[in-house]
Amino acid sequence: MTAGTLYGLGIGPGDPELITLKAHRILQAVPVIAYPAPEQGDSLARQIVAPHLPQGRMEIAIRMPLVVARFPAQEVYDAAALELGEHLQAGRDAAVLCEGDPFFYGSFMYLFGRMAEKFRVEVVPGVSSLTACAAVLGAPLAARNDVLTVVPAPLPEAEIAARLKDCDAAAIIKVGRHLDKVRRVLEDLGLSAKARYVEHATMAKQNVRTLDQVGADAAPYFSMILIHRRGEAWQ
Amino acid sequence: MTAGTLYGLGIGPGDPELITLKAHRILQAVPVIAYPAPEQGDSLARQIVAPHLPQGRMEIAIRMPLVVARFPAQEVYDAAALELGEHLQAGRDAAVLCEGDPFFYGSFMYLFGRMAEKFRVEVVPGVSSLTACAAVLGAPLAARNDVLTVVPAPLPEAEIAARLKDCDAAAIIKVGRHLDKVRRVLEDLGLSAKARYVEHATMAKQNVRTLDQVGADAAPYFSMILIHRRGEAWQ
Repeated sequence: MTAGTLYGLGIGPGDPELITLKAHRILQAVPVIAYPAPEQGDSLARQIVAPHLPQGRMEIAIRMPLVVARFPAQEVYDAAALELGEHLQAGRDAAVLCEGDPFFYGSFMYLFGRMAEKFRVEVVPGVSSLTACAAVLGAPLAARNDVLTVVPAPLPEAEIAARLKDCDAAAIIKVGRHLDKVRRVLEDLGLSAKARYVEHATMAKQNVRTLDQVGADAAPYFSMILIHRRGEAWQ
Repeated sequence: MTAGTLYGLGIGPGDPELITLKAHRILQAVPVIAYPAPEQGDSLARQIVAPHLPQGRMEIAIRMPLVVARFPAQEVYDAAALELGEHLQAGRDAAVLCEGDPFFYGSFMYLFGRMAEKFRVEVVPGVSSLTACAAVLGAPLAARNDVLTVVPAPLPEAEIAARLKDCDAAAIIKVGRHLDKVRRVLEDLGLSAKARYVEHATMAKQNVRTLDQVGADAAPYFSMILIHRRGEAWQ
């Protein structure tokens, strides 16, 4: 029997209409879907594709414990890889739903690392939060020969400052509880007036605010700050 | 009369199936489309959407002269903005086709800068070449708290070297005739073995090669090099 194919399916940043025709077709075709989920409750990825999901799919929720030490997380992926592997060996294709794009800061790579040597794995790129935020903010990310730097906010303050110091254009991702630290860096570098903030881009609860409108502990994980040194990329 | 809406329509990296449901719906609905095109010959953007394009659209080819000095290019955008503006004022919606994503190194921003204050402009994000190349190469772009740096290859050699020196993950875009320069930088920094090269990702003529398989003048404009310092993002 031919083993099934594992799809890493980019499903876009949140708006169900920002899924690709290809991801939509694969969703209709595969008998098995898997998706990341919290320890309890609904999966955001599954919610995004819910309008497109036919009845009767076998579903695997990859539930991540709240306290994510390295080893429990690895065990969760080991177990998911095992379960997906059994479906593939039985000839069933499976799709792992990935918010945004599977290879842009996505947890899919942990499954990819476990499966790609044993099975046929196809990654279907999706619209990433990076460009979705730019669209929502009405601000080009980068142009011409700009260097674009993507900086995760959990990094230490000094490293964020070093990375932003010479940037032409930058995106600060995973802002969440790191907002105050990021605000300090932007203030020190004189970049505050050029920073644009958005949370839950393209989702129903999308929110665009100025940086000083957001409380110290009020930025969600799915928030991003975009900066362009010239102010506008086309200038 | 209500003026029409201008859509900056991300149509993805090349595979017609990597267009979003939203871009597809808008393509069916708008009476006017515009797209970048060479001075003579076919538009790549129009080719990408050709399978989805209904008959009878009014079409505006934004033809860019081969010798692109700053001012002729500006005149071309001025003329396109004028023509699009007439349609919008007459109440007709129009969509500008943008390869990849409109705000990721896209020429759409030149129209956006001319139109956004006068008309309703909506940007529909698309799958960018950045994540499409990662998918094709089977190599996660960035993970966890990696800093991702996007470097245009036309920059001076010393600046490319400075930007790549401390990178966790990097994408070198617009490689084209700058391949030899980029190869030298990667060699000097000891990054050659970690570099992956792809041209025309997701298009019919897609080609994945190692860097030393590509001749000095043989890299097309639509080529990209991805690098991850650890070798694999999940390690």
